[in-house]
Formats: sequence, structure tokens, C-alpha cells
Amino acid sequence: MDYYKLANEYQTPFYIYDFDKIKERFDKLKNAFKARKSQIFYAVKANSNLSVLKFLASLDSGFDCVSAGEIYRALKAGAKNYKIIFSGVGKSIEEIEFALNKNILYINIESEAEMFLIEQIASKMQRSARISIRVNPNVDAKTHPYISTGLHENKFGVDIESAKRMYIYAKKSSFLEPVGVHFHIGSQILDISSIQEASKIVSQLLRELIALNINLKFFDIGGGLGVCYKDEQEPNLYEYAQGILASLQGLDVCIGMEPGRFLVANAGEFVTKVLYEKCNGEKRFVIVDGAMNDLLRPSLYKAYHEIELLSDNIKGNLSLCDIVGGVCESGDFLAQNRKLAPTKTGDLIIVKGAGAYGFSMSSNYNTRNRVCELAKENDKIRIIRKRESYADQVALEVEYLKD
Amino acid sequence: MDYYKLANEYQTPFYIYDFDKIKERFDKLKNAFKARKSQIFYAVKANSNLSVLKFLASLDSGFDCVSAGEIYRALKAGAKNYKIIFSGVGKSIEEIEFALNKNILYINIESEAEMFLIEQIASKMQRSARISIRVNPNVDAKTHPYISTGLHENKFGVDIESAKRMYIYAKKSSFLEPVGVHFHIGSQILDISSIQEASKIVSQLLRELIALNINLKFFDIGGGLGVCYKDEQEPNLYEYAQGILASLQGLDVCIGMEPGRFLVANAGEFVTKVLYEKCNGEKRFVIVDGAMNDLLRPSLYKAYHEIELLSDNIKGNLSLCDIVGGVCESGDFLAQNRKLAPTKTGDLIIVKGAGAYGFSMSSNYNTRNRVCELAKENDKIRIIRKRESYADQVALEVEYLKD
Repeated sequence: MDYYKLANEYQTPFYIYDFDKIKERFDKLKNAFKARKSQIFYAVKANSNLSVLKFLASLDSGFDCVSAGEIYRALKAGAKNYKIIFSGVGKSIEEIEFALNKNILYINIESEAEMFLIEQIASKMQRSARISIRVNPNVDAKTHPYISTGLHENKFGVDIESAKRMYIYAKKSSFLEPVGVHFHIGSQILDISSIQEASKIVSQLLRELIALNINLKFFDIGGGLGVCYKDEQEPNLYEYAQGILASLQGLDVCIGMEPGRFLVANAGEFVTKVLYEKCNGEKRFVIVDGAMNDLLRPSLYKAYHEIELLSDNIKGNLSLCDIVGGVCESGDFLAQNRKLAPTKTGDLIIVKGAGAYGFSMSSNYNTRNRVCELAKENDKIRIIRKRESYADQVALEVEYLKD
Repeated sequence: MDYYKLANEYQTPFYIYDFDKIKERFDKLKNAFKARKSQIFYAVKANSNLSVLKFLASLDSGFDCVSAGEIYRALKAGAKNYKIIFSGVGKSIEEIEFALNKNILYINIESEAEMFLIEQIASKMQRSARISIRVNPNVDAKTHPYISTGLHENKFGVDIESAKRMYIYAKKSSFLEPVGVHFHIGSQILDISSIQEASKIVSQLLRELIALNINLKFFDIGGGLGVCYKDEQEPNLYEYAQGILASLQGLDVCIGMEPGRFLVANAGEFVTKVLYEKCNGEKRFVIVDGAMNDLLRPSLYKAYHEIELLSDNIKGNLSLCDIVGGVCESGDFLAQNRKLAPTKTGDLIIVKGAGAYGFSMSSNYNTRNRVCELAKENDKIRIIRKRESYADQVALEVEYLKD
């Protein structure tokens, strides 16, 4: 790929996503479960660009949405309503109404209070809401505390006993139709034994519910599969699937999956240009035109991304440096303590593994325009989101300037 | 203030800024330096809403901008070009051209490479660029590492010796006109002795430059004054000013200041609505409709904001809880381990001290619409930024959906 040509045509910084790689990952995951009915619900929050969603819909993916906004995006991109599920701890009345109006597949319920609210809204709309309950199995996912979600000390889901009580209630309600059970214990999980442990706990609940004549169709195992950012060993998908399937012996359910990062992280790159090099005392800085507002993961999670320097003329020895952006705080870095050859203005730096939680977390901090997004498919490159302009940034404010 | 009425009229969540409080802080700072020529350059990055900028311009404030976008905003809001300065480590060619074209007061230079680039651009434009050099005095500001900027291990500024060399170079250049010197050692500084120490170091440089017949007009002491978020003792402004003035004895300069947080932090509140309460095991969560995408400081800096519960009917005892948003990660919290009475759906929670680095760092993560902003002035409340819509969010993508 000729990054310089792209930088000339679209300016820097930009994100670029390789759709063929997304398909490869999608097929791999789907195949691991091919012995069973399964449905992938792509976790839209990882990368919600409309063209990415459209591409995934063409692969027959469903969509896991965590806001009405994400449902709006999925539908806009051509998703079928019966392949959309709605998760998240903070659903508002308006969002639940929106989801029921769109007649999506089911809502993943995160608390008893939410269940009652959904029942109330469905009753007012004189329809039945398909629901699934997110169970918090109290299993430690052994990942970053910010993205660990399966412990009682996290805000997500309800404990097994509460879930059971809620299913019994829902079964009796005229406005609730329990169709699934859900768990998701965290993100970027490398040790799948914790997911399998959770699966065992939750499948036991399924059996107890059957004994109560509550038959669920969907066993939604969430997402959270870890990917390789540096030298991590990705989970073996065959073992992952076998562990889940073993816990489901004798149960006739469709396995739902909610991969986000797994599908898109390593299909994406963030491309940025070198502006300056400088040394402060002993410390070397490479200042680029991308910054923390474009890619927040290094600042927020201390996340590691591989860095590649593209230069038409590399001279000199590698030495340690920080790759930093122009935002006015020291927390603005893309990478720290990396060995890099001397750079010059105009060189390009490729930040790898940036397809997930990259653009979707970006902001206008420091009144920086959000970057453009490109897609690569069948060796062709096209733009899928235009670079923002300053006029775009003030569009919702400018009318209030008049006295 | 009737928050319920506002919540009804504008929906939640929203930011509200008290312009009278901004003025009070502005006057207080200005008065502390009244014995001398001084100019406040408001740090736009703290809160860049156009109406906030317009209000500050009406107080005769200048503007410290860290991107062409911020210069665009300041000008749009009615700022005079000769009261705008341009700071930041990552200025691109386009941004420098923009600043020179707008003929702003001066550019704060952060590295030797940047100085040469500015000279080159000015030369091409056949004009002289007014510059100031940001000196990194290697003083520890004793604040959060992400917002400490005055150590050599930070990316900001140049050391004293380099600065001296650069001034001598600039003085000789036909395209550079050195007019000021600048330092800024960090943000949210409570112990002003570090700023005064830096001031001493930098004023000594000023004297050495005078001996070389380089006479600077502006002594830009940056910002960084700490504010009270919880129980911090704010610096005494009189002592602050006296310390600076003492170091400037015998020097005829205009003191430039770049307050951001100091002017707006405690003039702003973030108002959000309770959606649900839930308990997971021992842990109590109050789930609100605002989230980390709206106010990132708690997640990113572990920042503390005071919380106030507004309820028309508070019953029951206080107990510890986390106030969390609906974003799908455990890092999404507005406050942790706070004592709060039991809440019910529809109660309001006021997050205090949210006027700085609140909206300006907000994002669309989880496809959440950015909130609206309100202003209070002379007891009147008006909207100064419209709430975003889903259509706004996809506006730059939707055209690329066609095949």
C-alpha cells in the first residue's frame, strides 16, 4: 500500500481499515462454531463507521448496539432489525421506545429496574418485548480494570439468583418475552478459561430455567476475545468454542457472540505525519500531527500500539523516543519509549491495531478536526468518512452568537 | 436556579456555565496585577464554546490558542487578532500560515525546528513573524503527571540555553521578530512557589537578553493556577502576583497570563438525570444519563468532582455508591464511593466544577449525541450550543454508503 500517495490525496492523519481482514476474522470466528446454530452480533461501539457496518451486514453479521444511536447507525447501514440486539446499563425511556418501535431481536437487560421499565413501556405500546438478561457470573476476566465487567464490583448485569427471579417474573408478564441469556465478563481477554468458567455457570442457569418451563433460544456469550497488539498470544478459537459447546451439552440454543475488537482492531491503522523532532535534555520526542483526541487508548488505558516509521531516507541509528501529539498536555502520547530511527518532517508513522476504539472514541479536544476514514477492499481504497472542518465544529453553536 | 425546569426545557444531560462567575474570576486575576501592564489570554482549550469566548472578549480578554481551530473559534467569536496568541508543540505548516495570515499577536515557539519552519513560511509570505519562545525551566509543578509540563522529561518548550541561542538567531533574522518569552509548567497548580521559581529563572534570561540588546515586550507566565474541586486551598492571587512582580524588578514588560481552568472550572456544572439504581452484591450503583463521553476527567485523570443530588422527595439514609454512566466499560464513572441518599428515576445529579475540560473533551463514544450547553448571565438562562442529533453524527459518512 502506498501510504505516501494516500497521505497526499487525503491529507493526514487518517484511519484506514482493511475490509478483507475483517472478513477473514469474521469467517474464522463463525467457523469455530460451525457445528452449532450461531449468530455473530458485531459490537458496534468498537468501530461504528456506517461503511464498516454495511460491510459486516453483507457478511450476514448481526449487531450488538449499546445506544439508540448505534441502532440508528446499524439500520442506516442496512442491517435487518431482527439481527439487532440492544445492550447497556443506561437505557433511557426514549431509547427503549426506539428499540421496541424498530422491533429489534431482543434487549439485553442489565437490572431489575430496567426490566420493570421495559415492561411498562411495552405495556403502553401494547406489545411484548423480547428480552435477554445479562448475568454477572462474578468471574475475574483478568484484564484492564476499566474493561473488566464480570465481577460484582462492576456495574454490569445481575447475579444468578436475581436473574432466575427475573426470568420467572418475565415469563408471567404479558409484555415481556424472555428469549435469551447473556454474559460478558470483559474486554481484551486472553485467558479464555474465565469465559468458559462463566459459560458453565450460566448454562447451569439455563438448565434450571428449562426445569421451570422457561426455554431460551439464545445463549449470548458476549465478546471480549483478546487480540494481539504486541506479542500477546490470541486465544485458540477451536478451544474457545469447544469449551463453550461442552458447557451447553444437551441444550438446543443458538450461540450469540458479540465480537468487536476481535473483528476490527488489527484490520485498522492510524496514519500520521511527523511534524518535528525535539530533544529536551536527554529525552527525545517525535511530534506528529495525530494526537490523543484522535486515538485515546494510549492515554486512557496505557494501551500499547505497534509503531512503524515510513521514511524515504532513513539515516542514523535507532534510539528511544516518545511519539507525541500536539495536544497541550503531557498525557498526549501515541507511544512511549520506542526505538526509532531519526525522523524528518513529512515522514509517516503507522500506528497498528487501531481499528477498534480508535475513531469511535475520538473527540474535538483542542478544536482539532476529527480525521477522515478510509477503507481498503479488494485492493481498492476509498473514503468512508470525510475529514471534519472548523465550520462543522461550530455548526451547533454559531446561531447563538447573535445578541 | 430551577434545574428541573431546565431539564424539562432542554432535556438532560447538559452543561451550564455562569458567566457572572467567569467575570468575577477574570476581574480577580486582572486586579491582582493591576500595578503593572498585563493582558489575560484565556486558554481556549478549557472551554471553547463560541458564546463563552464572545463573553470573554467583551471583558477585553485575549485568547491563547493551541490550534488553528481555536484561532478560528476566537475570531468567529469576535476576538481581535492582535489579542490572539498561538501556542502548542505540534503546529503544522497550514496552521502557521493561517496564524500569520490572520496577523495574530505572536506565536509561542516550542522547539528550534518550529522556529526554522516559521521563519521559512514567513519568508515565503514576505513578512515578519512575531514570536515568543516557550522556555522549559525544569521546575516540578507537583501536579498530575498528565498535566505537568515544566520538566525536561515533558515535551514542552526548550531549555534556557537553547532559548538564548534561538533569540539571538531570531533577532538577526529578517523574518522573525522576538517579542516575548513564555513559560507554563503545568496545570491545576496549588503550590505557587514552583511558578515563582520558574518566573525567577525566566526573568534572569530576560535580563541576559537585554544585555544582548534583545528587548522583549511580553513576559508570558502561562496559566496553571489550581482551583478548588473538593477541599483544595486555591493559591492566594496577591502572593502569586507579588512573587512574579518581585522577579521582574526593573524590567518593563507586559505580563501575559493564560488562565483556562481558573476562569471557567467552577463556573460550570454538568447536569444529568438518574436512570436506575442497582446493587451488585455489596456494591451500589446510581446509573445516570451522562457518561464518560460527556465528562472524561474522572476516567482519564481520576479527577474528583463534587456531586449534588436534587430530588423532590429524599427518603432514607446516605450510603456509599458509584455514579456511573451507560457507556459499556467499567471506566465509565462520574464519581466513586460517594455518600448519597437513595435516588429514584428522574432525580437530577449536579456535577460541580465542570466548566473546564468538560464539554471540550467530550466525544461521541457509543454513538452518544454530545449534550447541549447553556449559559446563565444576569439571572437569565439561554442555550449556547444545540444538542447533537444522530443525523449530525453520520453527516460526514452517509454519502459514502452508496455503492
